[in-house]
Amino acid sequence: MNIQTLFGKRVQKLRHELGLSQEKFALLIEMDRTYFASVEAGRRNISICNIEKIARGLNVSLGDLFKDIEKE
Amino acid sequence: MNIQTLFGKRVQKLRHELGLSQEKFALLIEMDRTYFASVEAGRRNISICNIEKIARGLNVSLGDLFKDIEKE
Repeated sequence: MNIQTLFGKRVQKLRHELGLSQEKFALLIEMDRTYFASVEAGRRNISICNIEKIARGLNVSLGDLFKDIEKE
Repeated sequence: MNIQTLFGKRVQKLRHELGLSQEKFALLIEMDRTYFASVEAGRRNISICNIEKIARGLNVSLGDLFKDIEKE
């Protein structure tokens, strides 16, 4: 799996743990819903500023967001 | 400091630990030297694929690259 896919899966997992739909989470972090859906689907070469936005919404540090991500 | 600046500083620190110049490191990871310099200077909203490329060049995992980065 490439890093975009791994990142999308990690984000989806953490979002599920919060019990939020894609739509609600995207609204919460003020990100376009279809863009956010494509990030989770691994189709976006997302930038560091948007990665930070997602981490904040998920209440995790960037270190935790990426922890062992290559091993999944 | 914003995340772009924090990221640039972290990368620079790890590159120094390897004892490589910006030019040599950029060559090693096949990234444009001026682009890489602007990443270290915190002037780029770098994408996840380029972040991964840098992490590989630095021989660190993404988790380690971002570990506690917000606290610096």
